[in-house]
Amino acid sequence: MAPRSGKNRRAAEIAADENLETLRPEHNPAWDALSRVVIESVSPEIDGGRYAVKRVLGDEFEVAADIFRDGHDVLGAALEFLAPGEDQWRRAPMAHADNDRWVGRFTPGVIGRYLYRIRAWTDPFQTWRQDVIKKRDAGQDVSLELREGRALIDKAAQAARQDPGAAHQLLVQVDNAAAELQRLLLLLSDSTRELMGRIGARADETLYHRTLELYVDRPAARFAAWYEMFPRSQASDPGRGSNFDDCIRRLPEVRDMGFDVLYFVPIHPIGEVNRKGRNNAVVAAAGEPGSPYAIGSREGGHTAVHPELGTLDDFRRLVAAAHEHGMEVALDFAVQCAPDHPWIKQHPEWFNFRPDGTVKYAENPPKKYQDIVNVNFYGAHRAALWNELKDIVLFWIAQGVKTFRVDNPHTKPVPFWEWLIREVQAKHPEAIFLSEAFTRPKMLKVLAKAGFTQSYTYFTWRNFKQEIIDYLVELTTTECRDYLRPNFFTNTPDILPPMLQRGGRAAFQMRLVLAATLSSLYGIYNGFELCEATALPGTEEYADSEKYQFKVWDWDRAGNIKDYIRRVNVARRDNPALHQLTNLRFHPASSDSVLFYSKMTADRSNMIFVAVNLDPFEAHEATIEFPLGDMNLSEGDAFELQDLLGGERHLWRGAQHRIRLEPHANPAAIFRVAPFRYVDYRETCF
Amino acid sequence: MAPRSGKNRRAAEIAADENLETLRPEHNPAWDALSRVVIESVSPEIDGGRYAVKRVLGDEFEVAADIFRDGHDVLGAALEFLAPGEDQWRRAPMAHADNDRWVGRFTPGVIGRYLYRIRAWTDPFQTWRQDVIKKRDAGQDVSLELREGRALIDKAAQAARQDPGAAHQLLVQVDNAAAELQRLLLLLSDSTRELMGRIGARADETLYHRTLELYVDRPAARFAAWYEMFPRSQASDPGRGSNFDDCIRRLPEVRDMGFDVLYFVPIHPIGEVNRKGRNNAVVAAAGEPGSPYAIGSREGGHTAVHPELGTLDDFRRLVAAAHEHGMEVALDFAVQCAPDHPWIKQHPEWFNFRPDGTVKYAENPPKKYQDIVNVNFYGAHRAALWNELKDIVLFWIAQGVKTFRVDNPHTKPVPFWEWLIREVQAKHPEAIFLSEAFTRPKMLKVLAKAGFTQSYTYFTWRNFKQEIIDYLVELTTTECRDYLRPNFFTNTPDILPPMLQRGGRAAFQMRLVLAATLSSLYGIYNGFELCEATALPGTEEYADSEKYQFKVWDWDRAGNIKDYIRRVNVARRDNPALHQLTNLRFHPASSDSVLFYSKMTADRSNMIFVAVNLDPFEAHEATIEFPLGDMNLSEGDAFELQDLLGGERHLWRGAQHRIRLEPHANPAAIFRVAPFRYVDYRETCF
Repeated sequence: MAPRSGKNRRAAEIAADENLETLRPEHNPAWDALSRVVIESVSPEIDGGRYAVKRVLGDEFEVAADIFRDGHDVLGAALEFLAPGEDQWRRAPMAHADNDRWVGRFTPGVIGRYLYRIRAWTDPFQTWRQDVIKKRDAGQDVSLELREGRALIDKAAQAARQDPGAAHQLLVQVDNAAAELQRLLLLLSDSTRELMGRIGARADETLYHRTLELYVDRPAARFAAWYEMFPRSQASDPGRGSNFDDCIRRLPEVRDMGFDVLYFVPIHPIGEVNRKGRNNAVVAAAGEPGSPYAIGSREGGHTAVHPELGTLDDFRRLVAAAHEHGMEVALDFAVQCAPDHPWIKQHPEWFNFRPDGTVKYAENPPKKYQDIVNVNFYGAHRAALWNELKDIVLFWIAQGVKTFRVDNPHTKPVPFWEWLIREVQAKHPEAIFLSEAFTRPKMLKVLAKAGFTQSYTYFTWRNFKQEIIDYLVELTTTECRDYLRPNFFTNTPDILPPMLQRGGRAAFQMRLVLAATLSSLYGIYNGFELCEATALPGTEEYADSEKYQFKVWDWDRAGNIKDYIRRVNVARRDNPALHQLTNLRFHPASSDSVLFYSKMTADRSNMIFVAVNLDPFEAHEATIEFPLGDMNLSEGDAFELQDLLGGERHLWRGAQHRIRLEPHANPAAIFRVAPFRYVDYRETCF
Repeated sequence: MAPRSGKNRRAAEIAADENLETLRPEHNPAWDALSRVVIESVSPEIDGGRYAVKRVLGDEFEVAADIFRDGHDVLGAALEFLAPGEDQWRRAPMAHADNDRWVGRFTPGVIGRYLYRIRAWTDPFQTWRQDVIKKRDAGQDVSLELREGRALIDKAAQAARQDPGAAHQLLVQVDNAAAELQRLLLLLSDSTRELMGRIGARADETLYHRTLELYVDRPAARFAAWYEMFPRSQASDPGRGSNFDDCIRRLPEVRDMGFDVLYFVPIHPIGEVNRKGRNNAVVAAAGEPGSPYAIGSREGGHTAVHPELGTLDDFRRLVAAAHEHGMEVALDFAVQCAPDHPWIKQHPEWFNFRPDGTVKYAENPPKKYQDIVNVNFYGAHRAALWNELKDIVLFWIAQGVKTFRVDNPHTKPVPFWEWLIREVQAKHPEAIFLSEAFTRPKMLKVLAKAGFTQSYTYFTWRNFKQEIIDYLVELTTTECRDYLRPNFFTNTPDILPPMLQRGGRAAFQMRLVLAATLSSLYGIYNGFELCEATALPGTEEYADSEKYQFKVWDWDRAGNIKDYIRRVNVARRDNPALHQLTNLRFHPASSDSVLFYSKMTADRSNMIFVAVNLDPFEAHEATIEFPLGDMNLSEGDAFELQDLLGGERHLWRGAQHRIRLEPHANPAAIFRVAPFRYVDYRETCF
């Protein structure tokens, strides 16, 4: 047990001694004897690095971490990142912020999957410099320290691949300096510091033990207004469906309302077996079209187009026309099949059959979906099935579709989605997937973590002030802000919420403003602009739903809010603050029926404040309070407001103001706020 | 792109198809196609499983996780654990608590390092049973379902390794049943459910992608009262030091005060080179003993005993005597060396030398510690150094020492400590390490994560109500509750805090009660019981500190609080609620100078409430509020209190009570509270 003598030990033993790796304990893969610098609490990092963080192109990506080591040595750190398609890691410097917290940032230049990690090290020269300055300031003798400092430079000069000349020149100067003070000044100079910052040795280099992922989407992943429609119900003959050409004729109107994404429910052949009839009748009458979610018939499956809508060429023409109008087309991706989908004969191994030999249709007991059959993701030939599903997505991407709304992803395995989205985005990083997971919160969230670009949320059922605030605070300030992008739909073919059923036109306007300004992503399902509010009694289902029948809409019918929608969408597009999500802040309003919030760009060049009366029936007044400090305003500064909906302008001063929102006139106000600044003439005149 | 026909595909291709692993994306090691069940948000789990969770023997270990999958199938889950020295994982069931959160628990039977993980699966029979019940209740035909249920049992019977007879018997009964209703009742019966719970197939088995660690310590890791002393200053001759026999004579007194751990500052030979003198003088006068932290001289190093204290045999005798008095001995582990430590000649490769050939002594510029030399953990022959340091700890364990107070661990590399503690505890799971990291918060915490059993904290400098509450809430309710055990020292040889310097006897009593009841671990440095309060002016250093001179104490001097300490320690030992840490709760007290808090056992069989006057100078009154609901009391119930310090008893009813704490009489009250219950005679008499 006494210290062993080093003298008699053989060279091999000594070599083994240098290798601290031989000390590794079991079950401790992250332990590294040489990782002397502690790097932890990295942010953002989702579930210990299990899932990717999301950002959009143009965002600066900021990463923070706790970085420290034993003792008082000076550290350095870098944020390293590997861009898609590159094989060289790049570095961005990290700087100490406070209390062992370091921050670094870079701005991704392309879309796709980045890797990032953190490297930290000890800086011997800066440590030496810091200590010598303290000793000099305390009047201590530093002659030995000068020799140590010179040695550090000498070592750097010998190892330097760049700029060894400057180091050698410095050494000559130091050696020629007659006085110690002169040598000290040379060694402590800013230029020496800068030189050693470039060529000085690093010690204790430590790499954070996880490599993290960042997925950079195109901007439409975070900012878009969606318009959902049934392509078969866009014309005027109630006896038959419309086609893609009818849809093309609708494009100018949709674009005039200001939408970016035109989203079609499935466009494929519809099963004839067990086809559902009007209002979800178990048996369809002759000529009824069936639900477009019962995909596949003898006319084809997921890569076919319903013949009544047109041909694949017609579809591509529609996609191109939408593009010309500044919109893109999104398609539904619904994995289920009708009982007469071609796969059921071609690939019976992908389905479940019952003891009587029939294919097992979808159920959520006691509810039955006889017109729909689910695939078995873990049956025989499962990899072929997964690849087939991926090929379907790639097929439609080849037709010009880059955005997919995915039907009921929570009834399919999460590992499947993680794989599918990753594979597709590896080839097409511009692909966007919207998750329709109206399900329990943890499943909703894990689908976003697994890769979905956007998510449907519970917004549709959040009506009152505190529940709206609580939900938005969760979405915009907790960990999910880094992976979940909420797409706030006001309504869907499945959901006509009670507020819209009962609240009339004011409710439609109020819910529109909430959806379009609380989130940067929102959508409406057609009919919303007409304030369509007729439900099957006691349900959230539309009466005579388009899901089961052809429908003829009067797109100009009285009471429509198309112009209001247009103004909201123009306000969105014109104001960069509304393109973001996590910049949402709530502010005090003295009434429980008035919600008051803001979005501001980081530089405060664009500031939007929104006040909404949440009661569609009665006028409410409130004292609202502006966060002057956060607006870079002082108590006495004036600011100008323009209501982007009504057009009124105000010149206000001070934090508190009284507003009144009358639901039948202005259920909401979207104020663009700018400081009212002017040249102080007293200064220029005197 | 069109669906491929399965007909012509070769067998090898089909086999590859089954292997979803071939689909693995790059950079995604945690992805597993077959891990259909999502298992996440496991608690406790520290830094994504990077570090072990801590518990003590006797604790029930509870683990929670979010567990769910796509669809509506019924899941099962188990908490699996591997005990130290075993090679078979055991299982504890997990049950659904709420909102996809599952909980399981087990009680470790031995001390040491456990592994734990979570397994979850789909239960096809329970899923079938749940669906059939819903369909039956809705009056639907279930004849096909009965065939499916029978098939599940048949499959289980064929695969069963245990109890296949029961399954076969059930099948015969089902087949013999004439009526469908009879078959249904058989298949849905509790006994069938129980049988299939044992032998039924599991699908989608998913193992959580991380294996986690739990370190189970002996109870003294969390509950102990420490008494720190200089073994050389335990007798009455000011001209020379005391020895181990003098220490043995002190044992009854220390034990009578109620301490569990007798902690000695280093007992090794003290360097003669650059020895420090009285009150930290740079040069020692003749006969001055030097700081015990300047370890090593020609008389030996870290495994030697200072000759004036006695021999190794004497030390073992002391350890045994302490043990007989119900105490254990803790030693200081201080890695630094005096300039004349034997290693510096034997192992110059473990140290840093300066350009003039001298060994580099410790500095924190401009402060110099000329009597101390630090080892270089990353120099030549470093693995030999690390092993040597480990051997020192093992050496003292062989002498009967199981507890080590580690000096300044934050000036040594964190990977070293993680390795050392792990290696030592692999052989001696009873070993306890206390980290003396009075440094920045993140370093303090990472040392606890890396393996230190206990940690010194900032308690010594937390004096006022809100700062005490804030700090204790952090320690007992945030993530660090799972890895950091605070050992609250009232004072140390380096720290005589201002509150004690100025507050007099009441301050000593008040700080003692806080330390001993806020945390389950606390300590005093000798002299505290005498209310020793003389500091070097303007510092927190003791005047004439024992660190640099022999000291003679009058252990019975007037004004001592030895009996008060005894009563506090008796209260601690007698009340299991005070053996725990994270059961601390603060309760309202209407004065800013009165702190009111409780510790209760989970079953409420032991309830301790503590009220402390934080002002050592003046009496304060407060209305305190008992949490009746949490005490399992109703508004009108009476409860009995006994003050374990003063002995007074009260019979109170209702939540609010008025108390007055007079610092010179009772600066604190430790109430044991019990419900005052009695037989209701009206009930028995009428």
